[in-house]
Amino acid sequence: MFRRNFLKTSAFFGVGLLAGDSVLAAATPAQEAAKPGALPAAVPPPAAGPAAPVAPAFPPEYGPASAKGRVAEIYQKAHQVMYPICRVCPQCDGVACAGEFPGMGGLWSGASFQNNFKDLQQVRLKLRPLNSVSGQDRKPDTTTVIFGQRLALPAIAAPIGGTGSNFRRLLEDAEYFDRIIGGCVDAGTLGAIGDGPADPWAEVQARYQVIKRYGGRAVAGIKPRPNANLLKVVRLAEEAGACMITVDIDSGGRYQGNPRDVMVEPKSIAQLREIVRSTRIPVVVKGIMTPEDAVWALESGAAGICVSNHGGRVLDHTPGTAAVLPAIAGAVKGRMVILVDGCVHYGDDVLKYVALGADAVMVGRHIIRAAFGGGRPGVALFMKTMRDELEASMVVTGMPDVRSIDRRVLA
Amino acid sequence: MFRRNFLKTSAFFGVGLLAGDSVLAAATPAQEAAKPGALPAAVPPPAAGPAAPVAPAFPPEYGPASAKGRVAEIYQKAHQVMYPICRVCPQCDGVACAGEFPGMGGLWSGASFQNNFKDLQQVRLKLRPLNSVSGQDRKPDTTTVIFGQRLALPAIAAPIGGTGSNFRRLLEDAEYFDRIIGGCVDAGTLGAIGDGPADPWAEVQARYQVIKRYGGRAVAGIKPRPNANLLKVVRLAEEAGACMITVDIDSGGRYQGNPRDVMVEPKSIAQLREIVRSTRIPVVVKGIMTPEDAVWALESGAAGICVSNHGGRVLDHTPGTAAVLPAIAGAVKGRMVILVDGCVHYGDDVLKYVALGADAVMVGRHIIRAAFGGGRPGVALFMKTMRDELEASMVVTGMPDVRSIDRRVLA
Amino acid sequence: MFRRNFLKTSAFFGVGLLAGDSVLAAATPAQEAAKPGALPAAVPPPAAGPAAPVAPAFPPEYGPASAKGRVAEIYQKAHQVMYPICRVCPQCDGVACAGEFPGMGGLWSGASFQNNFKDLQQVRLKLRPLNSVSGQDRKPDTTTVIFGQRLALPAIAAPIGGTGSNFRRLLEDAEYFDRIIGGCVDAGTLGAIGDGPADPWAEVQARYQVIKRYGGRAVAGIKPRPNANLLKVVRLAEEAGACMITVDIDSGGRYQGNPRDVMVEPKSIAQLREIVRSTRIPVVVKGIMTPEDAVWALESGAAGICVSNHGGRVLDHTPGTAAVLPAIAGAVKGRMVILVDGCVHYGDDVLKYVALGADAVMVGRHIIRAAFGGGRPGVALFMKTMRDELEASMVVTGMPDVRSIDRRVLA
Amino acid sequence: MFRRNFLKTSAFFGVGLLAGDSVLAAATPAQEAAKPGALPAAVPPPAAGPAAPVAPAFPPEYGPASAKGRVAEIYQKAHQVMYPICRVCPQCDGVACAGEFPGMGGLWSGASFQNNFKDLQQVRLKLRPLNSVSGQDRKPDTTTVIFGQRLALPAIAAPIGGTGSNFRRLLEDAEYFDRIIGGCVDAGTLGAIGDGPADPWAEVQARYQVIKRYGGRAVAGIKPRPNANLLKVVRLAEEAGACMITVDIDSGGRYQGNPRDVMVEPKSIAQLREIVRSTRIPVVVKGIMTPEDAVWALESGAAGICVSNHGGRVLDHTPGTAAVLPAIAGAVKGRMVILVDGCVHYGDDVLKYVALGADAVMVGRHIIRAAFGGGRPGVALFMKTMRDELEASMVVTGMPDVRSIDRRVLA
Repeated sequence: MFRRNFLKTSAFFGVGLLAGDSVLAAATPAQEAAKPGALPAAVPPPAAGPAAPVAPAFPPEYGPASAKGRVAEIYQKAHQVMYPICRVCPQCDGVACAGEFPGMGGLWSGASFQNNFKDLQQVRLKLRPLNSVSGQDRKPDTTTVIFGQRLALPAIAAPIGGTGSNFRRLLEDAEYFDRIIGGCVDAGTLGAIGDGPADPWAEVQARYQVIKRYGGRAVAGIKPRPNANLLKVVRLAEEAGACMITVDIDSGGRYQGNPRDVMVEPKSIAQLREIVRSTRIPVVVKGIMTPEDAVWALESGAAGICVSNHGGRVLDHTPGTAAVLPAIAGAVKGRMVILVDGCVHYGDDVLKYVALGADAVMVGRHIIRAAFGGGRPGVALFMKTMRDELEASMVVTGMPDVRSIDRRVLA
Repeated sequence: MFRRNFLKTSAFFGVGLLAGDSVLAAATPAQEAAKPGALPAAVPPPAAGPAAPVAPAFPPEYGPASAKGRVAEIYQKAHQVMYPICRVCPQCDGVACAGEFPGMGGLWSGASFQNNFKDLQQVRLKLRPLNSVSGQDRKPDTTTVIFGQRLALPAIAAPIGGTGSNFRRLLEDAEYFDRIIGGCVDAGTLGAIGDGPADPWAEVQARYQVIKRYGGRAVAGIKPRPNANLLKVVRLAEEAGACMITVDIDSGGRYQGNPRDVMVEPKSIAQLREIVRSTRIPVVVKGIMTPEDAVWALESGAAGICVSNHGGRVLDHTPGTAAVLPAIAGAVKGRMVILVDGCVHYGDDVLKYVALGADAVMVGRHIIRAAFGGGRPGVALFMKTMRDELEASMVVTGMPDVRSIDRRVLA
Repeated sequence: MFRRNFLKTSAFFGVGLLAGDSVLAAATPAQEAAKPGALPAAVPPPAAGPAAPVAPAFPPEYGPASAKGRVAEIYQKAHQVMYPICRVCPQCDGVACAGEFPGMGGLWSGASFQNNFKDLQQVRLKLRPLNSVSGQDRKPDTTTVIFGQRLALPAIAAPIGGTGSNFRRLLEDAEYFDRIIGGCVDAGTLGAIGDGPADPWAEVQARYQVIKRYGGRAVAGIKPRPNANLLKVVRLAEEAGACMITVDIDSGGRYQGNPRDVMVEPKSIAQLREIVRSTRIPVVVKGIMTPEDAVWALESGAAGICVSNHGGRVLDHTPGTAAVLPAIAGAVKGRMVILVDGCVHYGDDVLKYVALGADAVMVGRHIIRAAFGGGRPGVALFMKTMRDELEASMVVTGMPDVRSIDRRVLA
Repeated sequence: MFRRNFLKTSAFFGVGLLAGDSVLAAATPAQEAAKPGALPAAVPPPAAGPAAPVAPAFPPEYGPASAKGRVAEIYQKAHQVMYPICRVCPQCDGVACAGEFPGMGGLWSGASFQNNFKDLQQVRLKLRPLNSVSGQDRKPDTTTVIFGQRLALPAIAAPIGGTGSNFRRLLEDAEYFDRIIGGCVDAGTLGAIGDGPADPWAEVQARYQVIKRYGGRAVAGIKPRPNANLLKVVRLAEEAGACMITVDIDSGGRYQGNPRDVMVEPKSIAQLREIVRSTRIPVVVKGIMTPEDAVWALESGAAGICVSNHGGRVLDHTPGTAAVLPAIAGAVKGRMVILVDGCVHYGDDVLKYVALGADAVMVGRHIIRAAFGGGRPGVALFMKTMRDELEASMVVTGMPDVRSIDRRVLA
């Protein structure tokens, strides 16, 4: 609770912190001119209008071990660029940004986002160093194949759009997706594009050019627009050669209260079937949180599902995805591809979700930070770091390859 | 723990925050005159007596997604007007105001209020976007009928009085109730008036004029005064045409230690029966926390119960209402109307309580904030926003109407 | 965790807070003389040695509902007088003072003290306003009789000594005990004196004069000195007419590491029996946390036990007393008097412990604060307030008298 | 969460705190020269480069009861010397330093370190003062024998190296190990040396000279280097007369991602057997978290295991060692020596781990602090204090000697 308040007010506190920062570091010209007294460097010109939020000082030795070196720089930069849209918290747990929608937060109280984090945290891993598969000449194999695409690790980008609504046009739309897809392709995995029901058609088309530029190595995320409209986007995906389509049916309640914006809808099985039959691209139904819906998605002919509560942004107080994944995998595993998203940050998180029944994970908020903080190379570095972490964890849990990972690695 | 301390001391911290705020915003005259140094804008004149508490700075991007736009302005205003009576915390969880009674807090340690919050938070919802009832041409029906009154959503105002004791006469009594009833009626639901055993009779009468003015679309909350006294208030309710009476029998222990103030009492079944038989207005027994009491209320002839621990203000360390509601519904559901209160903030909270067995919910503290921060339009906007939220949640949980909502929406 | 750190460092933060306080209130002379700049009122003379810790500002609207008016003043005063020995936290939960021994804290990590708090908090009460025993002509009977002594409520003072070691001679020993016994007697219950194995004999004797002065209405707490020594203190208790003796056998490990101070010892059943047979005063064995020890205490002939972990000051990581009381009561209830201590703050806490199986509770840290902050009248007011709270809680839980209280009041 | 952020940023906050500190204490020369205003004493020379982190003010009455007097001084000094490598938190729980690797933190999210703390905290002890073994003439026997070495208490140093990587050369390697081994030997127990796969051979040799100087009373910690390399280090241990070797096989995944650094590897049973057969020194396999691995270690001929997740530094989200120890002890207890590590701070922690099935515990981070803050005497004092604490806890739990400690002391 308190951390949220603190971070929410850090625009105010931030000044003091920055001032402290300036005091510690080399004096700025403003500082040298100032009389002894309070915080001169941060005082805006007296006649200024309402000041823009100022990013609070960022700890110099930030974050996780994997964030040393260039990854740390990426986080630092992301913090500068994105604040206050994203605070780049050391633990991305949905507390500080609760209710910030549009933005990076979970809906209303933020509980669904927080449940993703907490339910995943509660999964524990079994250290098995005597059952090792590694050594000087051996290495675990972190690769996998999804829909015919070989991936360096079972993790791909999640489709996240809203460069205008969520990210306030900090980046142009095509540039944003180029960073994400390019970086993921560089790291040997798949990027993604998002969709917005009100996005201009030219912008939508331009995104698919990015997919095309990277040989189709990206997920085409499509909002549950009315089918007639949706199928037009599917045509773009086909032209671009996208290797996978996701339809996030959980978005169907979004614009409910605002009739003129009703451009998305939940889907019936019949509607899903129409979409699936309209294309040879594998269709993944995104937003599955129950075995019942998973079975229905299978019956619609979909090639896969993504277990997801949309990062906690469509319904408050849902369980975390790690809590529901095992039962869903019990129902459809092996009969369709199972993806999952929700607070994937480290290689360990990939290991856990695969152990709980996923074929691969989708990475959302962390890849956004990497894109804003480090561009295409930042996204690539983030994905490669996660692959290295996964490899190290597979060594000490005794897993020779992705196919071997199952509940035995869980404590 | 810590947040409470922080917020409790924020009258002191507040100065620094306000000063920072001033530094960020356009300079005030006092500031321009001040020498560089400490916090001049907030220094009161040297000879002043004990300073009034000062509201700490309010984060500019406050709170939940639903608080954007005009709702956010209402919260901002409520914070200015009500502080320190209410801090308008992002999460109204009973921590900051623990023990503040009179005021907005829970009794003593605040545990009962906090349990209302926590027990409701722990209820999880099941996202079911494939079982949808909506789309461009369909909409869930959020309306319901209680005691013959059609409501835009199953949520009405809770009877809360104490404009003098709790709210320090920030508003005149009749104005306060006009805002609440007027706003609720504007939003298509019911307002409410509260009662105080020591309130002047003229003030009590004036309240009922407000109910009359709005055609009886309000709950007449009556304290468990001795029956002879209580029945006189029932007559006022009849004259005003109030559509429902609540008697909050849980208040019976309130003035126990102070003999001259013994103007309320717990009620026996016989006493309840006398009240019920005295009027044709449906009587709701408020303060039911066990199936046993619910059955007795039914036997007294009451038309309904309200599952309530009085917002945690009559006994410390009770369970939250969400924890006891299912067993109570199991005992009397369908044989009398079941209302419930306790930390209703979002449309999701309405969905949860109805799923747990309630016919409708009563909204307490949040509607007060709306009344102080936004007047009659603020109350209406709060209620309408909650309706929209409920509708969106019904879409993604697959609920076509209120009657359909049951435990299947719970995860 | 964080709150502890914060409070532990509040001697430093405190200056800023006090300064803020001064700014808010009328200016002090020092302040008027000061130049604009930093915190002049709190700066000690430049040549001063290490400054004494300064109490941080105290929120003006402090604490629980029952602390309004004169009780609030008592807490304010206690905070001024006792800081930093005791921070008079709103919730006395053992977090801030963890490890402060001597002092008010729990041993080492403070977990046993904290468990007392947490385990009691987790006990929930059942609101039953329809089963009421009260009204204008009825009142619950809060009195009880322990060892022939009629008590206004089932709560007495716990024996706490160490005016030198724990309280740094803030009060003279006899004055301290006079406040506690006098206040308790004024409120219609029993006071207590503590014991220290190294206390000068004259000081020990003087304490018993206080008991004598109040007609023996006090617990004679005696440390588990070697029996020959202990029996001499029993003689003092007899001369003073003390109505009860406690021997806190849990203290037996205290001076283990320091051979020259070995003046206490754990007791065998034979040693206990010798003590019991030496006097007609009822002997209560204090420090019982298991049914096994309770049965052995019964076999020793003791008249009672006190379920206690010594406020968490003799062994880290024990359960809270509320967790072990039911099993102990199951073993010996009705065959000997069962007392219990552990974080008794409100009337509700008394209700809970009695419901869990105790005949009466002992009040420790809260009564100390009352004694330091309000003297004898403060202790009396604290006890009377707790009685009033108990009465109000008995009304809404439907308990006509103390004898009726059992597990049915627990939710 | 919040505490971590706070402590992570305390380099910035620290200035303010230090300034407050200076204000409270006698004025420094810099202070006397300064104008009234902000924080002059802490301002670095204007032209300075990026300032080094500054340790925040340290509460004067720090920490646990056992830290009074000289131990408190040791912690104070450790804080000054080690900050920000270690913050010397009152509770060493892995929150503040999460992800700081190299350094003192747990890997990535820090969950494994934190689980060690939390899982141990949740173990509760049974206070049994009536079943006592002590008194004026009796004392519990805290000694034990491990591999023929009599120990003053069942606690020895854990092998921790990395004076360069983890401790930034604050101490020369040989000096660091001299403090640890010397202090432990002075306290009647065993010291330890750590190992690094990239350490220069001369440095490795010098460490073994320290073991030799103290008559072999130290654990020779050896990283799981390739066997040919590892056996060379075993020869050094033999020449030095080390009484025990540990091989921390859990380190095997460490340098996985960096091929040129692959100098460690997980071990197969065959590799372990080769190591065991190569020497007469007892070999302990360190990093066992499952009964399966424990049985395999037994089959390899190892003399013991150490139940350990390497302080949470090899795999994120493992259970705490207290959670897995009972099942492991169930599998191999009595057939090989069982050591355990994980957040051993007080004598109570030793008592708990022995009760859960360990023969002795290894002490890691706390002994490092003692070494940096108090040198060889500091380490000795820490170990002696822990012994005294263990003795006092054995008195009040009724344990006459280490052999008697079993699950009956657990609540």
